[in-house]
Amino acid sequence: MGISFESLHSDIAGRCGKLTVGKKTIKTPALLPVINPHLQLVTPKELRNMGVEALITNAYIFSQSQQYRIRALSEGLHKVLDFDGVIMTDSGSFQLSVYGEVSVTNTETLSFQRDIRSDIWVPLDIPTSPASDRQTAEGELAITMQRLAEARQVFGKDSPIAGPVQGGIFEDLREQAGKEVTDLGFTLCPIGAVVPIMEQYRYRDLVSVVMAAKRTISPGACVHLFGAGHPAMFALATAMGCDLFDSAAYALYAREGRYMTVHGSYKIDELVDLPCACTVCRTHTVEELRSSPQRDRLLAFHNLYVTLAEISRIRQAVTDGTLWELVDERCRSHPQLLAGYRALLNHIPVLERTDRTSKRRFFYRGDESCARTEVLRYQQGLSRLRLGKTVLIAFDGGHHDGFEDTLFFKPPFGPYPKELKETFPLGQSEIPEWDDAMVRQGCRGIRALIEGHPGTRFMVSCNPRWEAILHREVPGCEVRHEPV
Amino acid sequence: MGISFESLHSDIAGRCGKLTVGKKTIKTPALLPVINPHLQLVTPKELRNMGVEALITNAYIFSQSQQYRIRALSEGLHKVLDFDGVIMTDSGSFQLSVYGEVSVTNTETLSFQRDIRSDIWVPLDIPTSPASDRQTAEGELAITMQRLAEARQVFGKDSPIAGPVQGGIFEDLREQAGKEVTDLGFTLCPIGAVVPIMEQYRYRDLVSVVMAAKRTISPGACVHLFGAGHPAMFALATAMGCDLFDSAAYALYAREGRYMTVHGSYKIDELVDLPCACTVCRTHTVEELRSSPQRDRLLAFHNLYVTLAEISRIRQAVTDGTLWELVDERCRSHPQLLAGYRALLNHIPVLERTDRTSKRRFFYRGDESCARTEVLRYQQGLSRLRLGKTVLIAFDGGHHDGFEDTLFFKPPFGPYPKELKETFPLGQSEIPEWDDAMVRQGCRGIRALIEGHPGTRFMVSCNPRWEAILHREVPGCEVRHEPV
Repeated sequence: MGISFESLHSDIAGRCGKLTVGKKTIKTPALLPVINPHLQLVTPKELRNMGVEALITNAYIFSQSQQYRIRALSEGLHKVLDFDGVIMTDSGSFQLSVYGEVSVTNTETLSFQRDIRSDIWVPLDIPTSPASDRQTAEGELAITMQRLAEARQVFGKDSPIAGPVQGGIFEDLREQAGKEVTDLGFTLCPIGAVVPIMEQYRYRDLVSVVMAAKRTISPGACVHLFGAGHPAMFALATAMGCDLFDSAAYALYAREGRYMTVHGSYKIDELVDLPCACTVCRTHTVEELRSSPQRDRLLAFHNLYVTLAEISRIRQAVTDGTLWELVDERCRSHPQLLAGYRALLNHIPVLERTDRTSKRRFFYRGDESCARTEVLRYQQGLSRLRLGKTVLIAFDGGHHDGFEDTLFFKPPFGPYPKELKETFPLGQSEIPEWDDAMVRQGCRGIRALIEGHPGTRFMVSCNPRWEAILHREVPGCEVRHEPV
Repeated sequence: MGISFESLHSDIAGRCGKLTVGKKTIKTPALLPVINPHLQLVTPKELRNMGVEALITNAYIFSQSQQYRIRALSEGLHKVLDFDGVIMTDSGSFQLSVYGEVSVTNTETLSFQRDIRSDIWVPLDIPTSPASDRQTAEGELAITMQRLAEARQVFGKDSPIAGPVQGGIFEDLREQAGKEVTDLGFTLCPIGAVVPIMEQYRYRDLVSVVMAAKRTISPGACVHLFGAGHPAMFALATAMGCDLFDSAAYALYAREGRYMTVHGSYKIDELVDLPCACTVCRTHTVEELRSSPQRDRLLAFHNLYVTLAEISRIRQAVTDGTLWELVDERCRSHPQLLAGYRALLNHIPVLERTDRTSKRRFFYRGDESCARTEVLRYQQGLSRLRLGKTVLIAFDGGHHDGFEDTLFFKPPFGPYPKELKETFPLGQSEIPEWDDAMVRQGCRGIRALIEGHPGTRFMVSCNPRWEAILHREVPGCEVRHEPV
């Protein structure tokens, strides 16, 4: 019993995996649409028909509902919602963050979640606002951790309980929380209270908080980015190692007339055409959609199709090893996402350690590609090359006499011996015309090579076009000009 | 009668417009799916139900077909194909390019196209292979131009005849062809024989050829990029001023088990999930799609949905003035498209002249954004700023005494007076943290300002972090340090 997670493919820190809860298994990354029993724009049965394997609903709403409380207790959640997949229940923490108090205790909500036969239960953790000061964040984290310990103690190690990671915007608190949650044995770890950060487009802060939590959460645990529902940031979150997302956004946006895309959202009133392949958009004109009495429902369907398609795209990218390219594509859609992406690139040394060794390809997508894990790893490996006493690095790839070894050069990686030409990443990388940024990065590879071979004399043969960059990156480098 | 074109919105050199042929009107940019009467994976009626307003078929196939020739002549093409939208017919030039000869003359094919009541006729132009040498290209262009002149002479100025622009890969021949086609009065100009260039991913050459043709084709003419059917390059082509695309690719790819996306194609066998929002992908698993007896037809539908969605996305982007962002997004999906995009950025001075003056926004998407038309135009306008004799440019935006004027600084644009703060592009631009590339570009704005005001003394107040860049871009610039 309990909750277990298995990673089947990985890329950067992202995984395609299998989450098992009791006898049920779902594929990850996964989107768990949020269902409010009182307001169902799309029914759980319709979600199931779209291929949704898991959803999330709110136990607190059920516990407070005259209409649903008794039925849920007697018939169970799956029958009430008419959904045979995995159902995760939130505890009331969301209400706590909005209203400041709730009328249940930690053990009461967990007992209720058990009694309505939820597949995944969430304790009554305290979502610390990103605006909270350190003292508040520490105090709230202490309460959360007590409640998680209590949950383990009262309900046992085999109960399917998720262990939320809190700590506000303080990296060390997130690290501490990740460690304590792991020590308590939780294998499904929601990273909580990030919604306000995402609502304010603070993707740099999101990266800092998630990377901190991930440093200490067990690599074998499934990580849920609580409240993340906009597909534009799923790729970034997956790259950091988040496996589950949940979306109330599909419905909330629909009610506000907002149309989601993977590159951001539009108000339906500002659209002149429907820029999407889904069945709603291919069978309606924008005018028809706007004036339909079913507008909100149609928008909810569109929002879900787009969101689910992005999950599929991410699974494909992780399997292929092209997640960096997807992150690059998505994160340029908003300058603050670009800021988050660039912040993630500052974590490359950490990400390199777990990144896979071979991938489908390496497509250069602009300067940011110079900082990818594959480039760092390649350059780190250069010191292990066995070389003679005199080495020529020939930019033009031509043959030259008088050296014990001749290496060639491919930016942004750097120097390479002929035998590595067809191996990953050199052989599977495609780049446009050389540009300054990639040559600069390649020259850093030359520097790493030289530093790793103090007994060898190096000469670089290159076109004058690149000489200034070479001298800047490899001071004192011996250069001779290639024949033009 | 004849063919007329009206541009309603424009962005870069792209347009959203209205193409009128006889009594029929279609919205542009438009995709004309190719219909082969003998092999209809998707029927014209099904295309119509997807919102397709125009299609293209091959008059030569009809003329050679025992099954269709007589029916087409007696009933007309629209009845035979069961399609009431615009039908464009190709002449047999495609067969000419593949088989080297065809058994019709120019006037015969045009008469036949008229007689089967095609809405848009194409003369028997000669598609010059990009591998052809200059002499061949010149000779073939001369024949093409004779035939276009003949078409005008025989069928009159009001006949709905398209005027293809040929010339191989020679820019000056494409320019000459564009001029001659315009002089003959053609208002619908296909740019021909670019398929082999696109098949070889030579997007730099595509940009060179299209930009050359566009220099001389009348700005009032509708431009068709003949044979362009992959949605990954529609945005780039639109930015150059192409209005029509035609796609046999949706069906050809489907028969080869190839799955289109806006970022490239997959073989169906290498997919682990279906990364798309369309109804085919949301109602089938990848295994179901792969093993379906309807596989090719389902793939053709998917390919069409994706392609039509991209046309919608482009229309939205042109209307909003966000086409640069879409071009940037699409062109990073393949290093050779990135090379094409960078090649297009070399044409910025030309594109700036026709680009619109105000847009929804300017989102910084990486270094390439520094070269956008909006940046060039802003910096060109700086010399017209009326300034006092002493001017401070304050990077930190703070107030400083002792200068007649104080300007502020926003990269990648450069210096600005307070009154321009809310106007386009400054007020609608969003950038991540300042980086070297954008500050460098902004400093070029300072240089332009200084050069345009020889009687004024300038001082720049900036953080030491940016000083080296400032000195490199604005040699001799007077600098003082901002308080840290």
